[in-house]
Amino acid sequence: MSSDLRIDPDRMLAAFDQLAATGSAGDGGVHRPTFSEAHLAARARFRQQIQEAGLLFRVDGAGNHSASLPCGTEGAPTLLIGSHLDSVPNGGRFDGTLGVMAALEVLRTVKDHGLKLKFHLEAIDFTDEEGTLVGLLGSAALAGCLDPALLQSPRGGHEQLHQGMQRAGLTESGMLSAARPRDSLAGYLELHIEQGKRLERLGIDIGIVSAIVGIWSYRVYFIGRADHAGSTSMDDRRDASLGASAFTLAARALVMQDFPNCVVNVGRMDFTPGAFNIVPARVDLALEFRSPDAAQFDRLNAALLQLAQDQARRFGLELKLESLGKHFPCQMDDRLRQAMAAACDALDLTHVSLPSGAGHDGQSLSGFCPVGMLFVPSVDGASHSAREFTAWSDCVNGANALLQTVLRLAS
Amino acid sequence: MSSDLRIDPDRMLAAFDQLAATGSAGDGGVHRPTFSEAHLAARARFRQQIQEAGLLFRVDGAGNHSASLPCGTEGAPTLLIGSHLDSVPNGGRFDGTLGVMAALEVLRTVKDHGLKLKFHLEAIDFTDEEGTLVGLLGSAALAGCLDPALLQSPRGGHEQLHQGMQRAGLTESGMLSAARPRDSLAGYLELHIEQGKRLERLGIDIGIVSAIVGIWSYRVYFIGRADHAGSTSMDDRRDASLGASAFTLAARALVMQDFPNCVVNVGRMDFTPGAFNIVPARVDLALEFRSPDAAQFDRLNAALLQLAQDQARRFGLELKLESLGKHFPCQMDDRLRQAMAAACDALDLTHVSLPSGAGHDGQSLSGFCPVGMLFVPSVDGASHSAREFTAWSDCVNGANALLQTVLRLAS
Repeated sequence: MSSDLRIDPDRMLAAFDQLAATGSAGDGGVHRPTFSEAHLAARARFRQQIQEAGLLFRVDGAGNHSASLPCGTEGAPTLLIGSHLDSVPNGGRFDGTLGVMAALEVLRTVKDHGLKLKFHLEAIDFTDEEGTLVGLLGSAALAGCLDPALLQSPRGGHEQLHQGMQRAGLTESGMLSAARPRDSLAGYLELHIEQGKRLERLGIDIGIVSAIVGIWSYRVYFIGRADHAGSTSMDDRRDASLGASAFTLAARALVMQDFPNCVVNVGRMDFTPGAFNIVPARVDLALEFRSPDAAQFDRLNAALLQLAQDQARRFGLELKLESLGKHFPCQMDDRLRQAMAAACDALDLTHVSLPSGAGHDGQSLSGFCPVGMLFVPSVDGASHSAREFTAWSDCVNGANALLQTVLRLAS
Repeated sequence: MSSDLRIDPDRMLAAFDQLAATGSAGDGGVHRPTFSEAHLAARARFRQQIQEAGLLFRVDGAGNHSASLPCGTEGAPTLLIGSHLDSVPNGGRFDGTLGVMAALEVLRTVKDHGLKLKFHLEAIDFTDEEGTLVGLLGSAALAGCLDPALLQSPRGGHEQLHQGMQRAGLTESGMLSAARPRDSLAGYLELHIEQGKRLERLGIDIGIVSAIVGIWSYRVYFIGRADHAGSTSMDDRRDASLGASAFTLAARALVMQDFPNCVVNVGRMDFTPGAFNIVPARVDLALEFRSPDAAQFDRLNAALLQLAQDQARRFGLELKLESLGKHFPCQMDDRLRQAMAAACDALDLTHVSLPSGAGHDGQSLSGFCPVGMLFVPSVDGASHSAREFTAWSDCVNGANALLQTVLRLAS
């Protein structure tokens, strides 16, 4: 009975440990920014694992690496399962890697038992999920929604992108030709660590993602006037730091009070001219806010921008805004969510529905094919840091839930 | 009668305009950071002016350039008059330059009339008044109070200092050997633009500086924790930006309310890791505060540091402090102030006593010889910017007040 089927925890751990050692930062974490030598080494290691497992290896024009198992009937679509092997600078060893290793293990388990499904299986490692160069690059290319303009002005820098592509043997035209036919995919499933504390606090095994939050970002410019910081009296100043500081505090208070399901971050300020003895003429502030609710974004956006205007006016400053992208929240597929819940029930794993506060490749794919995501608990919610940790038993639970979801969808 | 003597306004303007054109930024301002090519070109131009005027040229081990007029008796001390030709990045054309050109013009006037005084005269251009590399470098070297440690860890960077010294043909041992014998100087006089709005608002011709404010500076580190800005809930964060922002606002309010004669500036913040999607783990804040009152500094210092502690604690942050220098306020010499006031009266120029909120080379020299400073009005108080402007008639008034002060001191 395929409902008794389980993945091999030791085999998955051996594969996972190989990846944790590739680009290891020596502190439990990994440093594998997209197209770095360590990242390319991780992909070479994955390729080797695929070939040793007797699966078909495939790499597309966007550099997405995958293992194929032709277990469906001729002409059947493919169910994609995966995540990513790139990391943020000095990131954790679970983020992305767990999902790729679990997908590979699901294919090996299905292959070992010679199961015939109603779709083929493919375990994929997407390029640049973390956005070192271009956010969600590989999944957007596969879904045919990669904006060519992003290759010209990538947030990671044009030279960095093109040097990286050269190291990886990729070209721009290859990137844009990685799109697959829409009816070729039966769906996309991903297992990932939660990167938050909700599962741990609730003592629940599995999170079934309801939606991935939307992310809007701006560069906000508070513009005052440079003056001598000794000879200009306090009330004669138009000090850009005051607007930026007041906005940072007020934005947090606003979101906590009026938008409790949302988050806001001021990740950076850059001061011009930036000297001890000159009143700041300009502060460039990196603003990002997230909401799981598309209808709410306009209200949140309007409230934050009004706040920026108010604080600029309060200190006699000019305000300028540069929109850096509006990624709307996306819903996970109901049928996939039901299959995941049923799989957890059958495995006696407790589960809860929750939104993802982090971005994932499912955002690129949700308009292209049904998408579903499973979360396993993150100890202390730590992520994007060497402190990131998930108990191996939880990783195994997640991989078995993934396997059983696949089998339910195939039946 | 020497009390009828006046400087030649057109000759001074011609010399001033030559300097305004050297390192001109094309917008009325100049860009002559210490030891830049433009700065060295300005010094070469000054040397040429000195030689064309038939004055003796001198450069010391600290790179201070000067014109000497041996108009005193054998063995008489020297009255130093001057300012500096370096500028802040994209600074104004009056700051420093006016004082050097006025000093040169005073020497030319005395020379033209063949006056014999009770001291020799020297018009000096001090090295790095603005502190691009080391604040008040040239005047500290001349006064024998240059701290050798500052040459090892200059605030402008060690490599920048040493490359600049190489361009200027200077050495470290030369710097430290530029000290003059204490009894060699009769005093130091400087004419400068006010860099504030007080003279303009009062409609007064000349400011006679009572004291130069003291400046204390710190690098303040607010230390929190890097977290994923999407998946970490707002109240789980230890966001360093909050402490830095709250401190910036509270420091301003504290100084305006409790220390109305002081100023505070947060000229810069640096965020780590500084990404849109990561909660700031650390903010390094550049803090500077000034007071004209030495006795007040301890109270102001304690109040600001307590505020930083309070705001760090409020947001669950750690606080670290790095002291970057404590320059105490210094008093101008009474006899020189009386001579300046009498000179203004004789010239029918209105005058007022006021403290300088900006630092000046007189701070290095005040423990070494009597120091006096004259200010002329700055339009709209603008300084350290291309907007800096002083009416030429005010510059001429200042130069005549300088000349008449010299003659009064000599009689």
